[in-house]
Amino acid sequence: MELLNDAFYMRLALQAAAGAAGQTGINPMVGCVVVKEGRIVGIGAHLKRGEAHAEVHALNMAGAEASGATAYVTLEPCSHYGRTPPCCDRLIAEGVSRVVVATEDPNPLVAGSGIAKLRASGIAVDVGLLGEEARMLNEAFNHFIVTGMPFVTVKTALTLDGRIATRTGHSRWITGPSSREAVHTLRHRHNAIMVGAGTVLADDPELTTRLAVPGLHPVRVVVDSRLRTPPDARVLNGVAPTVVLTTDEADEASARRLAESGAEIVRCGPGPRVDLKAGLKALGERGIGSVLAEGGGVLNGSLLEAGLVAKMMLFYAPKIVGDGAPSGFAFNGPEQMGDAANIKIASIERYGDDWCVTGYPERRGEGG
Amino acid sequence: MELLNDAFYMRLALQAAAGAAGQTGINPMVGCVVVKEGRIVGIGAHLKRGEAHAEVHALNMAGAEASGATAYVTLEPCSHYGRTPPCCDRLIAEGVSRVVVATEDPNPLVAGSGIAKLRASGIAVDVGLLGEEARMLNEAFNHFIVTGMPFVTVKTALTLDGRIATRTGHSRWITGPSSREAVHTLRHRHNAIMVGAGTVLADDPELTTRLAVPGLHPVRVVVDSRLRTPPDARVLNGVAPTVVLTTDEADEASARRLAESGAEIVRCGPGPRVDLKAGLKALGERGIGSVLAEGGGVLNGSLLEAGLVAKMMLFYAPKIVGDGAPSGFAFNGPEQMGDAANIKIASIERYGDDWCVTGYPERRGEGG
Repeated sequence: MELLNDAFYMRLALQAAAGAAGQTGINPMVGCVVVKEGRIVGIGAHLKRGEAHAEVHALNMAGAEASGATAYVTLEPCSHYGRTPPCCDRLIAEGVSRVVVATEDPNPLVAGSGIAKLRASGIAVDVGLLGEEARMLNEAFNHFIVTGMPFVTVKTALTLDGRIATRTGHSRWITGPSSREAVHTLRHRHNAIMVGAGTVLADDPELTTRLAVPGLHPVRVVVDSRLRTPPDARVLNGVAPTVVLTTDEADEASARRLAESGAEIVRCGPGPRVDLKAGLKALGERGIGSVLAEGGGVLNGSLLEAGLVAKMMLFYAPKIVGDGAPSGFAFNGPEQMGDAANIKIASIERYGDDWCVTGYPERRGEGG
Repeated sequence: MELLNDAFYMRLALQAAAGAAGQTGINPMVGCVVVKEGRIVGIGAHLKRGEAHAEVHALNMAGAEASGATAYVTLEPCSHYGRTPPCCDRLIAEGVSRVVVATEDPNPLVAGSGIAKLRASGIAVDVGLLGEEARMLNEAFNHFIVTGMPFVTVKTALTLDGRIATRTGHSRWITGPSSREAVHTLRHRHNAIMVGAGTVLADDPELTTRLAVPGLHPVRVVVDSRLRTPPDARVLNGVAPTVVLTTDEADEASARRLAESGAEIVRCGPGPRVDLKAGLKALGERGIGSVLAEGGGVLNGSLLEAGLVAKMMLFYAPKIVGDGAPSGFAFNGPEQMGDAANIKIASIERYGDDWCVTGYPERRGEGG
């Protein structure tokens, strides 16, 4: 049984926030619960970028009951005019008497200013309740707002011997239906999906979100140094925008053909390989705050080597395919085991017959 | 990771509903989530009897987005005019195209009529998703709507040898702070709290909800065959209403004194003991749908013998106090073990150093 306390209301606010995972674009997920004299009088979540913030939805539901109430908000209320008026002003105008905030704004430029504004108006503010849960909920946003680059999650389906296909290249399917449902859920929850040109040529994937309920389609990003993507590839079917990251040296005629097929061509560095960091910065400038990398071993290895992987989700199927089959991470690794890429494991979850290992690559020097 | 499917949205609706536990009076807890083209556009819960239903709050948040949307509702939308207009009409008027319902209305007189009305208007309706969870959430309401009597949960703190005090009657405290926080949470979530006159005389309890956050105070019910409750007892302090259940033969002057102190006196049967079933019916007529019985062993035993206990929550502290100490269930038990009251255990949860065993007494003939 959940006990009735501040954490109970904050947890409900976090649940409302998390419901909107994938639909807030580069905005954070935020939830709000308004409580007056022992009763919930309003529940809200931020549902779409440019539309009402969580506090506004919850205060609208509360109506006149907001006066003298306590508002539980998963993220520090904004104090500046963005696409909507500042939530601090609304909380003050409604006469809310206490605000409980899970986390400060992760943007160092404004962190604490909303809290200070509320306090200056005489509202009691408590900060930090379920802060770790709230930070984890917005791990992608928190990374993006500080770096300007999307949070990259490498997702890959592997056999127990770390392969992504048999030695003939056959790969449909490694994992089972439950893992694939999880992957489509991940697509819904990311702003973009990224593959290499090799995957486009080998599998001609559509890279859309296909679930029993409608999901949102991420922007499709193809890393394609030499512009080998065919103009009639399914990633160019118009269901969602497509961005092709390439190099300065890539052929202009190929670029024009792909652009005519609907792709946006972005040149990242002189070549011969795409400068992935420049590519991520370009995606960030286009309002992409999270990327699900579903490429093969080459893309995975390149991202890992470049230190650009924020998170990994490795779906292991209970299969062994033997030597000579392509690896999930193709890169020229270290000589010493002590120099291996270390992954900090966060969870291991079961999906049907498969297991998903979720972890975070440690930066050099962070390892223990 | 929670997969994106119908159950994901229904679970969020259930969480919103459960947030309002204790604040809907004899109304059920209900939650609603409205989803349009892969996005949540509205979240709502029924927050207070006589005020907006869950669907109305969620549809208000959704605004024009409700047209063509799917509404996930934890309970069949109402089709009749009650204190508010029928939710079916509102769902139809907004142009919702699909409604997913967790459970039918438990009132056999109206069950299915809301679903039929929606279907007649061309809305696709699916019924039964997370139905068991939704039914458990409203176990008290479902009992009340069918029997007219409140759902009685016996809560008691016990030593490991089943005692509620030492042999001298000393009982403060058996369980620790975490268990007591759980009990005050239970008070918030019940319409009434019931004790025997013996408890009032021994402990003079206030029987209010005292938590770190404000909670709602239940109606206080004292079972008092001979009207021994003193007019200056703390249960009569006016913080919440107080009902005294007594018998036809109880003294009229005592009844008048207690009434002058603010109690409502309800005579239940000729005596000498209070007819508890009649008492529960009287409470049901007064809008009390759930009772937390926090009496001593005599009240617990009487309720159990009369077959009036719907649920038990037994908080065990890791203590032994020995023979001669008062028992948690004082009644003249059966001769044969096969005739014992059987409890179907639902959960065992830890609260600090204590353990709470939650279970449901089996009706005679139900046992297996």
